Amino acid sequence: MRNFKVLMAYKGTAYHGFQRQSNAYTIQQAVEEALTQLIGEEITIFGCSRTDAKVHARQFCFSFKTESAIPCEGIINGANNILPNDICILSCEQAHEDFHARYCCKGKEYEYRILNSSMKNPFLSDSTCLIQKHIDERLLNEQAKAFVGTHDFKAFCSADCDKENTVREIFSFNVRREGEIVIFTVSGSGFLYNMVRIMVGTLVYIGEGKIEKDSIPELFEKGDRTLAGKTLAPQGLILNRVFY
Amino acid sequence: MRNFKVLMAYKGTAYHGFQRQSNAYTIQQAVEEALTQLIGEEITIFGCSRTDAKVHARQFCFSFKTESAIPCEGIINGANNILPNDICILSCEQAHEDFHARYCCKGKEYEYRILNSSMKNPFLSDSTCLIQKHIDERLLNEQAKAFVGTHDFKAFCSADCDKENTVREIFSFNVRREGEIVIFTVSGSGFLYNMVRIMVGTLVYIGEGKIEKDSIPELFEKGDRTLAGKTLAPQGLILNRVFY
Repeated sequence: MRNFKVLMAYKGTAYHGFQRQSNAYTIQQAVEEALTQLIGEEITIFGCSRTDAKVHARQFCFSFKTESAIPCEGIINGANNILPNDICILSCEQAHEDFHARYCCKGKEYEYRILNSSMKNPFLSDSTCLIQKHIDERLLNEQAKAFVGTHDFKAFCSADCDKENTVREIFSFNVRREGEIVIFTVSGSGFLYNMVRIMVGTLVYIGEGKIEKDSIPELFEKGDRTLAGKTLAPQGLILNRVFY
Repeated sequence: MRNFKVLMAYKGTAYHGFQRQSNAYTIQQAVEEALTQLIGEEITIFGCSRTDAKVHARQFCFSFKTESAIPCEGIINGANNILPNDICILSCEQAHEDFHARYCCKGKEYEYRILNSSMKNPFLSDSTCLIQKHIDERLLNEQAKAFVGTHDFKAFCSADCDKENTVREIFSFNVRREGEIVIFTVSGSGFLYNMVRIMVGTLVYIGEGKIEKDSIPELFEKGDRTLAGKTLAPQGLILNRVFY
């Protein structure tokens, strides 16, 4: 069996997330159907992570095995011809037989985009979250540093999170503004369910005075989801990079 | 009855065009429902034109009448709160009782966007049409000038077009490149069904050598739709401006 490591990009708007579901169309289903059609063999892919409905990826990694002798270029061009234009295979290489996109992943970088404007923008509605109150991105950038390091993120994951171990390491967390867009970039060893959207929601609440400044260490200590900020909308979230 | 002139912007991806349909969700239905809910009175709006499914508008004009005393600011803010984020009311003013968005319209400007790249871009898939062969935008800009003036556009409208009079005036037609995006901007007195998408498709065919250079005057003369280029995909089309 040959084992492949594939990078792809997708716009998640039209999909119910990455992972296959019995009753909704997902990225995994679209890609598996394209590869199965191309290779002529039932293909199962293993993604580096789940992404929620409407979440995007600039770089998502998956692995799959096949008996076929199809060359990497053939996978890239063939799959891109079959896949819809909101999913694009970026690269494909043959990997060690033990490579697994999820278990070998050493970290990820996410971006969260807020449209900080008094006016909605129809052309950014599926790639940003609208917040009309002015955001002080310098304050949020400063406050975001409290997330960096190894912490128990129990207060920053969804109640639906099924992980027993909620300790994760954040490598970096930066906030900057580009015109009306405030961009949050966070990289780390791993992320719990909804963790990025809750961390950004907490920073926004700090900016709005709904959560006290410099209180992130206390939120870690208490581990109480209800004390953190709200889970921001999925469409502002983009998986930027995956590290191996 | 007070009569209002309203400008709005929308991203057409999620809608089956502007005009109300019995079996599909349209921009008109979304806006009428929002205004009816806001004003508490059954509202019917009159659009400056139809737009097809997946076509966008940076500036679309509609008019509507109401007995209500609601101020213009109340219409803008109230409707924007109710409407989804892919539709935005830009302005609203009280107009003469005879004003009608469609019948008073003196012209429109459309933009058509081609992603001219060897690679698909998932993030531009709903706002551009992908053409992988290199486009010579200077040649197309030069050829586009043949559309300017008053002509019979019979060869450049869909077979489904129900207009008897197919004479229209084009004020200007320019083609430029911004990186990988080739942008066609055309303004005119009025446009037949699919006319912009067919004119741009014809220019692309001229660039590819499928239609001879300098043959647009001949296409006008023959008036045969089958001799012109193909109708390009709707998602590349944007209604830019409406003139009154």
